[in-house]
Amino acid sequence: MAKFEQLAHQIREQLQEGIWRPGDKLPSLREKSLHAGMSLMTVLHAYQLLESQGLIVSRPQSGYYVAPQLSLTDSSHSPVGQNRVQITEDVDVNAFIFDVLQASKDPAVMPFGSAFPDPQLFPQRQLTRSLASVARHMQPQSALDNLPPGNENLRKSIAQRYALQGIAVSPDEIVITAGAMESLNLSLQVLTEPGDYVVIESPAFYGALQAIERLKLKAIAIATDPQQGIDLDALQQALNDYPIKACWLMTNFHNPLGYTLSWEKKQRLVAMLEKHDVGLVEDDVYSELYAGLQRPLPAKALDKKGTVLHCSSFSKNLVAGFRIGWVAAGRYAGNLQRLQLMSTLSTSAPMQLAIADYLATSSYDSHLRRLRRALEQRKQAALQSLRRHVPGEVRIHPSQGGYFLWLELPEGVSSTVLYRRALERGISIAPGKMFTTGDQFDRYFRFNASYEWDERCEQSVTVLAALIRAQINECLTRTPL
Amino acid sequence: MAKFEQLAHQIREQLQEGIWRPGDKLPSLREKSLHAGMSLMTVLHAYQLLESQGLIVSRPQSGYYVAPQLSLTDSSHSPVGQNRVQITEDVDVNAFIFDVLQASKDPAVMPFGSAFPDPQLFPQRQLTRSLASVARHMQPQSALDNLPPGNENLRKSIAQRYALQGIAVSPDEIVITAGAMESLNLSLQVLTEPGDYVVIESPAFYGALQAIERLKLKAIAIATDPQQGIDLDALQQALNDYPIKACWLMTNFHNPLGYTLSWEKKQRLVAMLEKHDVGLVEDDVYSELYAGLQRPLPAKALDKKGTVLHCSSFSKNLVAGFRIGWVAAGRYAGNLQRLQLMSTLSTSAPMQLAIADYLATSSYDSHLRRLRRALEQRKQAALQSLRRHVPGEVRIHPSQGGYFLWLELPEGVSSTVLYRRALERGISIAPGKMFTTGDQFDRYFRFNASYEWDERCEQSVTVLAALIRAQINECLTRTPL
Repeated sequence: MAKFEQLAHQIREQLQEGIWRPGDKLPSLREKSLHAGMSLMTVLHAYQLLESQGLIVSRPQSGYYVAPQLSLTDSSHSPVGQNRVQITEDVDVNAFIFDVLQASKDPAVMPFGSAFPDPQLFPQRQLTRSLASVARHMQPQSALDNLPPGNENLRKSIAQRYALQGIAVSPDEIVITAGAMESLNLSLQVLTEPGDYVVIESPAFYGALQAIERLKLKAIAIATDPQQGIDLDALQQALNDYPIKACWLMTNFHNPLGYTLSWEKKQRLVAMLEKHDVGLVEDDVYSELYAGLQRPLPAKALDKKGTVLHCSSFSKNLVAGFRIGWVAAGRYAGNLQRLQLMSTLSTSAPMQLAIADYLATSSYDSHLRRLRRALEQRKQAALQSLRRHVPGEVRIHPSQGGYFLWLELPEGVSSTVLYRRALERGISIAPGKMFTTGDQFDRYFRFNASYEWDERCEQSVTVLAALIRAQINECLTRTPL
Repeated sequence: MAKFEQLAHQIREQLQEGIWRPGDKLPSLREKSLHAGMSLMTVLHAYQLLESQGLIVSRPQSGYYVAPQLSLTDSSHSPVGQNRVQITEDVDVNAFIFDVLQASKDPAVMPFGSAFPDPQLFPQRQLTRSLASVARHMQPQSALDNLPPGNENLRKSIAQRYALQGIAVSPDEIVITAGAMESLNLSLQVLTEPGDYVVIESPAFYGALQAIERLKLKAIAIATDPQQGIDLDALQQALNDYPIKACWLMTNFHNPLGYTLSWEKKQRLVAMLEKHDVGLVEDDVYSELYAGLQRPLPAKALDKKGTVLHCSSFSKNLVAGFRIGWVAAGRYAGNLQRLQLMSTLSTSAPMQLAIADYLATSSYDSHLRRLRRALEQRKQAALQSLRRHVPGEVRIHPSQGGYFLWLELPEGVSSTVLYRRALERGISIAPGKMFTTGDQFDRYFRFNASYEWDERCEQSVTVLAALIRAQINECLTRTPL
């Protein structure tokens, strides 16, 4: 170990022992150099290492400070409580997520772990008709017409849907993407440079974690509750303490939690971020799937300065395989389409044209009504089945929309173990560890409740329930030892 | 200016005056600090600034050295000569490229500046038939089947085409992408971290420059000649001097130069890169468009260690708007598909299925034969017209394949000026400055020769020729003053 590494190690131990507390100023480089009998360079390198690990922060013209509210040890505790802010350097979403996604490709597996709604719910016949019509009328020139920002008719149709909700979004600020995953990647990239801090929720959709890993950003994960949503006080604290460049959130029917942020909290959120001049990347792919009377408004409705990048797609409510999404990118629209030209050049022309054709038939709204009704019925059936079979200690967090349920297992029961055992029995779930950069949420898992509730579903739930019960018993026999 | 910036400025001047020569060791931090009467930190920051500007390099456990063969001033000289290696930090491909691309979208403009071949050359009817057939048979499940690495039949068809050339590429190392632009981005990303050095050609396809800007990489541009291709001695020198992580090249029918690297040079290239364990990203989108008897082999054919990432697509020879390409990624295939899942999730299922369907009809090869014949005839017609009209001082570099011509204007004539004047007259060209991170190649431009040579083409060339002549005259009247 080099000298500076030894010094960094020593300071890290002092932090863990609480000798330096969150917010404390560390000795200046000169002081530390004198006291430790080490060169200025050694101290500088040690501080830089600790900073790169997110343990301390430098404030220009002031010095180095202990990072606020750090969780230095991995924990499986409830998301709300001590560790309301968690900083992760070098986000490494391990091969685990990849494995889980690969497993969900196998048609022999009961896909409770899938992120997609049952594809049988999509209007296959009408989409086929639109695609065939596009094929008949496609012009050689169409590749150029559909370069970024994307097909004009499609952008107009999307702008009209915003207008129906009373949200003023011009077709000119809409950029068509290859789905919400590209929306999210381009939006984060337009707001950040590698090494920048980005706020996310904890737990968060793994796609956001992967994007952050891919773009070499530092994640500041804010505790997020299944009922209350993101802890805005903790967010405020993080905004005060860190030079945050972007905030990535799901405001409606959060994945995996299912909650919807209240209108009051959305107002406070937008005001806070505006004040700190931090762009909001709002991932809003589920809001068409509301169970109540009205589609919840996004935070984008409150955007006065063009700093909310509202990301959505047709993949969750119309068709997954076409890969068509968009960003209403506000003042960033120009930069975002330039970035897209550099990364994928454009979205495929026939896919854009097919969706535009389908939207022009105006059967989208009646499809959405049927879809919402079906999803709600199926979710209720799944809920009842789960309540019938899983042990009483398992808490099921229901959602007000979308098709996910968030299940909380008793203390000591691991959803990662459950995932592996269930997969052996031909059932997939989405274990909680997929949704964090740390080691949290191992007691939780996400359950896809979008399937027609048949004998196979019922049977799979009884198997899951038995596997959970077995783990609870293992815990009980382990404890007395 | 801060103290360290003043010091950096001073050293920079000394470098320009030749006081320190390429390869010289600079004074150590301590020496410099003593001599300059400045603190260690000031000297460190000055050196770090110069390093970040690519002017000096640090060698671990040794010190700081002047970067080899630097071009400190912008130059419009011939690519081969003094500045065989050029380092660019913070690649900023300006809005210029974006403007040129946007201009080419206007159907009223004669698109000599376009990167795409005339879309009339594509087999519209057969593609339409394939797309309609896909629409009829599409399964709801298809979104999942076509997740990365992509549709299996499509990957098999592509592997078979490699086999026809005697190249062993397994379907398992092929990842389907949304076109060569995504191939290139994913390949560079799999090999590098932000801040790493990447070798490119000079001039280079602007898409590579944009990808490098997007990924925050440092470009080392190696002089590349229209007849000889990349200067391998200069490449060897760069490999010795820099911790290079990837090399991005076009080996066949280079864009914009049109040259094809000889088999001997490909062998030397692969051996050199293998020795230094540097991955080769081989962009090979034009090789199906050969004018001679045989399709040139890619460097991938020499890849024994799986370190050549061969990128190609159907966009230049079958259909542009579908956005389907691939990478034969060797040992990086696993990481690359994981990266793709994180960035765009996948390529659209119907587009993959439509290309797979088209390839299964086995009309691809007869289409390619017709396409090659047509392109060669059109290029010859364009060449003759250009030779008829443009002044004799203009040098036209012909190509052995593809559809680009590289034109060299006389000293003092600017293709950027020509571009602007031509655009006012409804004609686009691709000015040389699009193809460099520096200020070179302003005497050159790329000419798309894929159009049916009609009256409009002929007329446009006479306008271009007149504009060139006017600029030459302006130079002549300027010189005597």
